Amino acid sequence: MLESNRREIEVMANLLSSNDTQAEINRAFFRKSQCLAINIIGSPGAGKTTLLEKTLPLLTKSLQVGVIEGDIFTSKDADRIATHDIPVIQINTGGGCHLDSKMVSKVLPEFDWNAMDLMIIENVGNLVCPADFDLGEAFKVIVLSIVEGDDKPSKYPVIFRNAKAVVLNKMDLEALTDVNMEIMKQDILAINPHIRIFEVSCRNGNGLSQWISWLNQEVLNFKDQNL
Amino acid sequence: MLESNRREIEVMANLLSSNDTQAEINRAFFRKSQCLAINIIGSPGAGKTTLLEKTLPLLTKSLQVGVIEGDIFTSKDADRIATHDIPVIQINTGGGCHLDSKMVSKVLPEFDWNAMDLMIIENVGNLVCPADFDLGEAFKVIVLSIVEGDDKPSKYPVIFRNAKAVVLNKMDLEALTDVNMEIMKQDILAINPHIRIFEVSCRNGNGLSQWISWLNQEVLNFKDQNL
Repeated sequence: MLESNRREIEVMANLLSSNDTQAEINRAFFRKSQCLAINIIGSPGAGKTTLLEKTLPLLTKSLQVGVIEGDIFTSKDADRIATHDIPVIQINTGGGCHLDSKMVSKVLPEFDWNAMDLMIIENVGNLVCPADFDLGEAFKVIVLSIVEGDDKPSKYPVIFRNAKAVVLNKMDLEALTDVNMEIMKQDILAINPHIRIFEVSCRNGNGLSQWISWLNQEVLNFKDQNL
Repeated sequence: MLESNRREIEVMANLLSSNDTQAEINRAFFRKSQCLAINIIGSPGAGKTTLLEKTLPLLTKSLQVGVIEGDIFTSKDADRIATHDIPVIQINTGGGCHLDSKMVSKVLPEFDWNAMDLMIIENVGNLVCPADFDLGEAFKVIVLSIVEGDDKPSKYPVIFRNAKAVVLNKMDLEALTDVNMEIMKQDILAINPHIRIFEVSCRNGNGLSQWISWLNQEVLNFKDQNL
């Protein structure tokens, strides 16, 4: 092994270990605040922000929700969420391809935690790198546009192995694509038999109520477990 | 600045500088071989492999073409290309989110360079990280599914700044999405006024002939410039 490769591997290991330490601090904070934190991961254009826009108005009837938006440069997604009158903080990674636990910890003081039930962290649009960085969330949720193709779960297995749920979005376009939903779902369950799968269309609203009621129940379960 | 941050920045700078050195060696090799090398970048499911499947049978009528397929784990894409009787080599990054110039240099000896006109390198499905790593290609081409949304160019500007062409794919789905093609194209040209834009549907074949004849001409131009 070259000296430069050895150094690179050491630095990467240190980076991940220091990320994990901060992630545990964040996790303890969320637990103490009785707030379920989730980390939403998906490719650019999978529909992460649109899913939040459809989910938040229904969730916030019963819950206090906050959003952390991760983006490389712009505040476009945070601006979209802010129009729904939800407390939202933008993190710009300045070129970085994923959020890390330190970036998240720095913005936590900007929220009012007295009655926060759910903190949704939308990661940078990327199906690869965010999978490796624990932010201190209770669990990860994948958003996958079915238009991306049924081979994606087996090509990007790490994130499917580490997530609690996957929202298969843009189901309204199914008939117009060559995607085989049975293969897609079988491959997802082969990687992670315990993952919860939701088939939705943010465009026509189909399937959203199951996703929202599941998420609502997860908030209640989290509070019960952390009384 | 923390000592660990300083070390991380140094290692990243060394990494990129050592990548650039190997990229120049690759570039000199492609030039000596009179072979145009291009680096295809896009999100998972943008349609990179499908574009190649549609392009190769028409290109190979007049040109010798080889393909390097970058993937995280599987050889699914290389298997698809191999059915077209094209020399193809798979690089598995083993979790890595992009190809680098050393990975590419290692597989170059596996091709026959006596009469190679075009080497197409399909990068890992990721719109962020591959933008930073020069592989020694003559230029980069982006494949973007319009279903991903018209805000994507302004949210991921680095790759649009560094590419010579962008193939806007899945145009057959335009009427069924909320994408505004004028905004998308304006934003792309605002980032990079010299970029060539192709609007195609790999599904129904629309627009492919312009892309293929442009690429064919680029091969001829490259050979003229490197006689």
